[in-house]
Amino acid sequence: MNIEGKAYRTIWFENNSVKIIDQTKLPHQFIIKNLKTVRDSINAIKTMEVRGAPLIGATAAYGLVLSIIEDNDQSFLKKSSKSLIASRPTAINLKWAIDRMMKKISGVNSSNILKIALEEAKKISEEDIEFCKNIGLNGLKIIEEIYNKKKDTVNILTHCNAGWLATIDWGTATSPIYHAHKKGIKVHVWVDETRPRNQGANLTSYELNEEGIPNTIIADNTGGILMQRGQVDLCIVGTDRTLFNGDVCNKIGTYLKALAAKDNNIPFYVALPSSTIDWNIKDHKQIPIEERNSEELSHIEGLDEDDKLRKILIYPQKSKAMNLAFDVTPAKYVTGLITEKGVCEASELGLKGLFNNEKIQGRSN
Amino acid sequence: MNIEGKAYRTIWFENNSVKIIDQTKLPHQFIIKNLKTVRDSINAIKTMEVRGAPLIGATAAYGLVLSIIEDNDQSFLKKSSKSLIASRPTAINLKWAIDRMMKKISGVNSSNILKIALEEAKKISEEDIEFCKNIGLNGLKIIEEIYNKKKDTVNILTHCNAGWLATIDWGTATSPIYHAHKKGIKVHVWVDETRPRNQGANLTSYELNEEGIPNTIIADNTGGILMQRGQVDLCIVGTDRTLFNGDVCNKIGTYLKALAAKDNNIPFYVALPSSTIDWNIKDHKQIPIEERNSEELSHIEGLDEDDKLRKILIYPQKSKAMNLAFDVTPAKYVTGLITEKGVCEASELGLKGLFNNEKIQGRSN
Repeated sequence: MNIEGKAYRTIWFENNSVKIIDQTKLPHQFIIKNLKTVRDSINAIKTMEVRGAPLIGATAAYGLVLSIIEDNDQSFLKKSSKSLIASRPTAINLKWAIDRMMKKISGVNSSNILKIALEEAKKISEEDIEFCKNIGLNGLKIIEEIYNKKKDTVNILTHCNAGWLATIDWGTATSPIYHAHKKGIKVHVWVDETRPRNQGANLTSYELNEEGIPNTIIADNTGGILMQRGQVDLCIVGTDRTLFNGDVCNKIGTYLKALAAKDNNIPFYVALPSSTIDWNIKDHKQIPIEERNSEELSHIEGLDEDDKLRKILIYPQKSKAMNLAFDVTPAKYVTGLITEKGVCEASELGLKGLFNNEKIQGRSN
Repeated sequence: MNIEGKAYRTIWFENNSVKIIDQTKLPHQFIIKNLKTVRDSINAIKTMEVRGAPLIGATAAYGLVLSIIEDNDQSFLKKSSKSLIASRPTAINLKWAIDRMMKKISGVNSSNILKIALEEAKKISEEDIEFCKNIGLNGLKIIEEIYNKKKDTVNILTHCNAGWLATIDWGTATSPIYHAHKKGIKVHVWVDETRPRNQGANLTSYELNEEGIPNTIIADNTGGILMQRGQVDLCIVGTDRTLFNGDVCNKIGTYLKALAAKDNNIPFYVALPSSTIDWNIKDHKQIPIEERNSEELSHIEGLDEDDKLRKILIYPQKSKAMNLAFDVTPAKYVTGLITEKGVCEASELGLKGLFNNEKIQGRSN
């Protein structure tokens, strides 16, 4: 999608290095960064220069390519893949991407391994773009239906950034919105700022601005009363891991919005490529919920009066803080899952109806 | 309560002026401010140097005293009282306090009016302290009951600041917590940071620290998963206006926590002095919900690396934001109301059972 009128993707391979947009500096600075080693890739994932389940999957795949360029040795490759999987615990795509890469290059001789690995990493990226585009087309129908009834701007609430910056292009939750906008359907997006890292404000509002889509940032606390007042027609969010029973693990706070949507009879959809489905875990309590540094809460970065980027302490110096990154929305609060294959019920039946073949063919993790 | 070991109240009268703690500067700076005119009082309420339903009620009462000192003329007094009531729209206490003051001084001759007004403003403050103390003793029983069953630290979640800084002393939601702590019951408080003004982090955590009560600040998004995980035993919040049917209008985001508490079978209590009860409005949609400047969202103040207070822009420069200050929690999500007279069901029956006499005697607004 566009930044200042120029089309970008979030990740690409060029001159034996991987290029990413450093998302920790958005919206205040637009910086393209070079990743040259597997260590660079792990670091980019850990520090959230790249984030979003699909994008960290692609970054891990390219990380493995960088690992092969560095040292074409099996034991180094194994170590690299383990470290890449461990770089963040909650999103399932890391494991999915690495497993897929390792399977592809297993048994390939050393003269071909780089070529094959690079092709597969690119394929993962291209597939993700295709999936996100199809998620958009499938979700578009939901927006269209509301628009045809309402004959006025469709107000969509989203949480965090499941935009193109969380994927390679299009995004998951935003893809139906971009497709609706391109089709001339009037949409307005309520963007949860999404504390503590404010990816809603910093990334979602930023990317919607760049595409000319009307949007308004709100505090995470605000969605409830907007729904009570009838100012939200539809919620669409992304997911970091979707259990095959339909439970959705996504950015902390998603659950609260799903509860409010249920209480006010507002459809609550989750958009996802099949790479984020966890076919193994049955109980959401088994999902590892990442606890991040509490400084992400107590400190915040922004522009001072001289447009200089500054980090300030916003909490009392004596206070402790706790920073959980994800929560789980039980399937019963999810109206439906918007996938690349179609929209289904958030349930084992719904997911298996769309994906059973892939699962049997081993696309599962 | 204590700040650096010294006991304070949030407001007091001294040398013909009203002293307040400037709460916009907490927790980074502790500044006592003089209000000398009714205009100063209105400004302190509008800019939220004082905030919290009971405290703005008391500030309005003292504002009327300052108005009398300025100009002992009936028309000026009437103008002052109107402006004080209009200084913030949602909390009912402003109107309650001004009506009470005006009734008290109506017909009083000009030589006595200042004395009578000052006495009444002091009485409003003293009563609020007494009410908050009793709210604490009544709420203490709820905490004690959980403690007796659990035999371990009681984890209490609160939203925004309904602490002593929101009242004159003790607080509403925090008063049961202070009383439990004084009685040796182990408590730990989950403090919602409460965007956009972060009164949870800036004020509640600050005052709990100063009283030595263990507390942890969390993003507003976090309460849901903590409840899912069994890490919250009880929620207690304050209120800016409670309808006599039990619907509770409080800081934006309260509703979302009430939904999560209901979904996880966690008791959700609202603590209030009877001055915040609105006996007139029957439908919460009639409550005026204050919309504040969106700069409260897009900009934030804190300490830079040199301990200098700085305000920074945290949103994309092109983005719009919307800042609603309150939401409404329907009575069905409220386990009970903790008042100065006892704990009751959040319903007309519950409230009338405790307060019918006062209502008939005209303590209503």
